[in-house]
Amino acid sequence: MPNDSLPLRALSLLGSGHALPARRLASSAIDQSLGLPDGSIERLSGVRSRAVAAAEDTAASLAAQAAHKALHAAGLSADQLDCVIAASGTMDQGMPCNAALIHRELGLGTSGIPAFDINASCLGFIAALDQLSWSLVAGRYRRVLLVCADIASCGLDWQQLHSAAIFGDGAAAVVLGRDGDGLRLNILAAQLRTYSEGAELCQIAAGGSRHHPSRGDEHFTALSRFAMRGKAVFRLASTHLPGFLQALLDEAGVQRTQIDRVIPHQASHLAMQHLRKRLGFSAEQVIDIFAEYGNQVAASLPTALDIGLRDGRIRSGQRVLLLGTGAGLSLGGMLLELK
Amino acid sequence: MPNDSLPLRALSLLGSGHALPARRLASSAIDQSLGLPDGSIERLSGVRSRAVAAAEDTAASLAAQAAHKALHAAGLSADQLDCVIAASGTMDQGMPCNAALIHRELGLGTSGIPAFDINASCLGFIAALDQLSWSLVAGRYRRVLLVCADIASCGLDWQQLHSAAIFGDGAAAVVLGRDGDGLRLNILAAQLRTYSEGAELCQIAAGGSRHHPSRGDEHFTALSRFAMRGKAVFRLASTHLPGFLQALLDEAGVQRTQIDRVIPHQASHLAMQHLRKRLGFSAEQVIDIFAEYGNQVAASLPTALDIGLRDGRIRSGQRVLLLGTGAGLSLGGMLLELK
Repeated sequence: MPNDSLPLRALSLLGSGHALPARRLASSAIDQSLGLPDGSIERLSGVRSRAVAAAEDTAASLAAQAAHKALHAAGLSADQLDCVIAASGTMDQGMPCNAALIHRELGLGTSGIPAFDINASCLGFIAALDQLSWSLVAGRYRRVLLVCADIASCGLDWQQLHSAAIFGDGAAAVVLGRDGDGLRLNILAAQLRTYSEGAELCQIAAGGSRHHPSRGDEHFTALSRFAMRGKAVFRLASTHLPGFLQALLDEAGVQRTQIDRVIPHQASHLAMQHLRKRLGFSAEQVIDIFAEYGNQVAASLPTALDIGLRDGRIRSGQRVLLLGTGAGLSLGGMLLELK
Repeated sequence: MPNDSLPLRALSLLGSGHALPARRLASSAIDQSLGLPDGSIERLSGVRSRAVAAAEDTAASLAAQAAHKALHAAGLSADQLDCVIAASGTMDQGMPCNAALIHRELGLGTSGIPAFDINASCLGFIAALDQLSWSLVAGRYRRVLLVCADIASCGLDWQQLHSAAIFGDGAAAVVLGRDGDGLRLNILAAQLRTYSEGAELCQIAAGGSRHHPSRGDEHFTALSRFAMRGKAVFRLASTHLPGFLQALLDEAGVQRTQIDRVIPHQASHLAMQHLRKRLGFSAEQVIDIFAEYGNQVAASLPTALDIGLRDGRIRSGQRVLLLGTGAGLSLGGMLLELK
């Protein structure tokens, strides 16, 4: 049963792109540096190799590279945008917002084009696309850049191999417009559900005012690292996933069998396998880039989308499901109909 | 000339509230601790006294106190919300997003109510209200909690008295609904303009991936402090303010003389004086809480709004202008018509 009370959201995807730091780190190299048998880290994490930021890379510089590719695909220049939105899972710096720093990297410093962030940890892309769809449809904006960029590598705790080995750095962007040029699409349904009883299961405790170096906490460096209790995250997410998905399908008025492609948040090898089994999809239907990209935090979903669009796995006429879990703990999903 | 192409945004403000940490710091106490003549800090900053977070206060706990007051005013309980949005200028912790941590403080841990952030530094309240208005009007949400909470005190550099002495901690919240109960209002116009050439003029360099303790930067603690080049911010903001305001009035189809009340971001004593002169308003028309609250980052605008609503200076039948500058550097404004 579709949700008749909500108006249809018809948008255009004008272009997409993703970018990676040049430096790559193979799992075999991690094996070597930790004195582990060759193949250990790949077996543990499901990641063969991931991109890792060098000292000169910033989240904003990676974001700008991805944005340039998306703008090129859209046939637009940055100054033709009327809004720049960042939906990263991590901050580039404490202030100003990520979007302002990306705006500067794009050479928009004197433009006045508005810039702000929408942040839902790993699910920022879904939350932001959902929010922006309403203002785009209403005519508030005509050409919006939505970009996710995360450098997770700096916050990894290599004492926790299970979580540290799964991440990769990167950025991805889309240029969105009102229904018209580009790849026309309808948002059939979008949902975000937050279960903050799991807020501590997946977190970076420092990086804000709660734990601040000025408070002289001797554990500050440890608190600034990403910490995840993977099994508990998986348990909590699994509990809610079936009901969540059913509500999304109900909102869209679509059967599970009518979905052509699934773009999961590349959370972990296990999470994606579980999700695929739950949904009853074939491996071919799922855009799985995990082995070569790892979990790129908020950049994962738009990176997988861009890859699928560029290699033709995602194309006109399809119903595409974006789905994932993120710190919060939140579940997020969106069902797109590509015209 | 009103912007005829945008649909009218009719909303309801169902309730508002603000909260402060219990601990207060008088400027005279700062004079004493720095060995300055009594009255020095108040003369320098324009702040007589401000609230300062204690060790047990977090941005999320202050946010929850403000949210409870707004919910009480709205006659609602937290579980009747259908979305929790944080629009703070600073993070509570690096991950998850602020809204998820507030969601937990509100006892919504198992609710599934969605939670995410909209962040535009000091102008988060305007950017978020603008964004949310479209989804509220479309029927995506019925009762949304929008809350801003910032603890600036931990990041102050007392070697830079001009900027350190102006801040105060706090939180403020509003509950928004579709046109109906509560204080009904139209958003006549909303604008955000970002000039990221000024991104470095007002910043916290650390707190994200750009400068991270794992990178072993010996200046890390200094980089985690708020740094502002006040005169340069003022110059850049002043250059753009007249054109910005005119565009906002044009969008609303309203003359300057038709505005009843102005709620400025409480950036600094100088900034608010300049703004008032530029606009030709009397002191009585401007909600100025700076002397007792200081600059509360993103919490400033909704705190001043809540105070004005509670003491009757802001009421039905008025046209109210929200206006300010924020790190980015951005200018933000919104014109409300209270029905």
